[in-house]
Amino acid sequence: MNINGKPHRTIWVAGDGMSVDIIDQTKLPHELVIARLATLDDAATAIRDMLVRGAPLIGVTAAYGLCLALRDDASDAMLDHAAKKLEATRPTAVNLRAALARMRARLDAVAPSERARAAYGFAAELADEDVAQNRAIGEHGVRLLRDLRAAKPSSAPLQIMTHCNAGWLATVDVGTALAPVYTAHDSGLAVHVWVSETRPRNQGAYLTAWELGQHGVPHTVIADNAAGHLMQRGDVDAVIVGTDRTTRCGDVANKIGTYLKALAAREANVPFYAAVPSSSIDWSLDRGADIPIEERGPEEVTHVGPSRVVPAGSPVRNPAFDVTPARLVTALITERGVCEASRAGLEGLFRVTRA
Amino acid sequence: MNINGKPHRTIWVAGDGMSVDIIDQTKLPHELVIARLATLDDAATAIRDMLVRGAPLIGVTAAYGLCLALRDDASDAMLDHAAKKLEATRPTAVNLRAALARMRARLDAVAPSERARAAYGFAAELADEDVAQNRAIGEHGVRLLRDLRAAKPSSAPLQIMTHCNAGWLATVDVGTALAPVYTAHDSGLAVHVWVSETRPRNQGAYLTAWELGQHGVPHTVIADNAAGHLMQRGDVDAVIVGTDRTTRCGDVANKIGTYLKALAAREANVPFYAAVPSSSIDWSLDRGADIPIEERGPEEVTHVGPSRVVPAGSPVRNPAFDVTPARLVTALITERGVCEASRAGLEGLFRVTRA
Repeated sequence: MNINGKPHRTIWVAGDGMSVDIIDQTKLPHELVIARLATLDDAATAIRDMLVRGAPLIGVTAAYGLCLALRDDASDAMLDHAAKKLEATRPTAVNLRAALARMRARLDAVAPSERARAAYGFAAELADEDVAQNRAIGEHGVRLLRDLRAAKPSSAPLQIMTHCNAGWLATVDVGTALAPVYTAHDSGLAVHVWVSETRPRNQGAYLTAWELGQHGVPHTVIADNAAGHLMQRGDVDAVIVGTDRTTRCGDVANKIGTYLKALAAREANVPFYAAVPSSSIDWSLDRGADIPIEERGPEEVTHVGPSRVVPAGSPVRNPAFDVTPARLVTALITERGVCEASRAGLEGLFRVTRA
Repeated sequence: MNINGKPHRTIWVAGDGMSVDIIDQTKLPHELVIARLATLDDAATAIRDMLVRGAPLIGVTAAYGLCLALRDDASDAMLDHAAKKLEATRPTAVNLRAALARMRARLDAVAPSERARAAYGFAAELADEDVAQNRAIGEHGVRLLRDLRAAKPSSAPLQIMTHCNAGWLATVDVGTALAPVYTAHDSGLAVHVWVSETRPRNQGAYLTAWELGQHGVPHTVIADNAAGHLMQRGDVDAVIVGTDRTTRCGDVANKIGTYLKALAAREANVPFYAAVPSSSIDWSLDRGADIPIEERGPEEVTHVGPSRVVPAGSPVRNPAFDVTPARLVTALITERGVCEASRAGLEGLFRVTRA
């Protein structure tokens, strides 16, 4: 998508053909900083410290992390070490493990002497696949928005609420939850996005507002607490969120606070959609309650910039994700189409029963 | 309640017998600053700029604002001017209008020459009445907590979630939503309080965590977004919130985000209580949807301390309150006892049908 009118991705191979450049998302929206990853450690740190974040982008960054590890040592032992190290960076997103598993399955079959070069090729395929999936999610999702548009009595823009950042900054490009929004906007369907700030890390305010603004999409930032009120008052036509992991039965793990929006949407008869690239589906899990929820450090809650916002003696809990049960999800938007949030729905689209 | 082990109120007449001292709550939790109100303008500014906040404390501060206005000019014209000015400071809390109406009804009957002295007496009565009401709310509410304690299989502390600040800092003393918590803690019933930070003004993190900490009540601060997840996982035994205005049918207007907690509580079968001093009941309104919702300035959302957290070009909406419909409220805790959140429930306790 566009930054200052020029198209960008979030990750790409640098001019030296080996290092990997990323947008350092911890610096947005204040500065656009490109960070260079030259080693496995650089990649692991970029994921763990959230220079890159968003389940799809984490997966692709991990794939490139393997490439960086294999540059100097393409042995089986290094491949194993690097995959384990990268997998340990973040616990909730399934894309991370899926991307590493796919890379390993292909790299295990390549002789060490050819591995580094092959790895870059495989990682580039993953990156391109992500973009293609997101474009497809945009096409499928925009049909839902056109239907809502047709059903809406007023001619005011369609009001979409989102949470956290599942835009192009969370992926290689285009985004997941925001793919239908960009597709609508670019095709002349007027949309306005309610951006909830998404405490404690403020990815909504920092990233979603920034990327929508750069692309020219009308939007308004709200405190997370305002989401229910706006839905209750009829100011929201649809909620679209991303996912870090969706079970094969359609339970959606996503940024903490998503579940509250789903409850408010159901109460107000607002459709609640999750944009789910198939890389985010965990075919091994039925129940969302079995998804491990990452607990992040207290300083994300206690401090905003240099300001301490919690008294020094007060303890903090900081779960990073929550689970929205399938029954609260109107539909899943995948790259293969829109389906019910259920095992039947997902298997109907993906036509496979996996273990 | 205690600060550094010494009992305090939030507002009191200063040593000169005329000026009014308050705790400047915009400085908490970092500094304990006492501000002196010497004029009507001082009082109006203290309410509007939220040096004092919390519906009961706003009402008492407005009453003292009338006193300050009458010090130099006790004419009918000044009484009228001062009441109008104070009433215009904040639109949502009904206590403000109720306190002013009660003061005026009594002061209209007093000759201007006696008015100033009488006003101080009436305001002191309102302040003492607030404290007595809150103690009664604490006694009625702690019975609910003892019942929950008896029904809880584990011996772990009772887990209470609250929102914003409806503690002693929101009142003259004791608090409303936190009155049952303090009563429980002081009587040896082990409680732990989940304090949601309450963006955008962070009254939970700044004020509730501070006052609980000063009084020695165990508590943990969370981002507002985490409330649903904790209830879903069984980590909350009860939610208790305050109210800025409750309709005669039991719809509860309170700090933005309260409604989301009520939805999550219902979903998780967690009882959801509102602590409602009768001064917060609007006997003229049936429907919560008819309560005016204050829209506050965007800077509360765009900035935290010196840090800008929203990109410069992004618009903001900042509704300060939302309405939780009576059907989501398990019970109201008033100074007269606990009742169903309904017209029958409220009228049963207050035994009057008002216009």
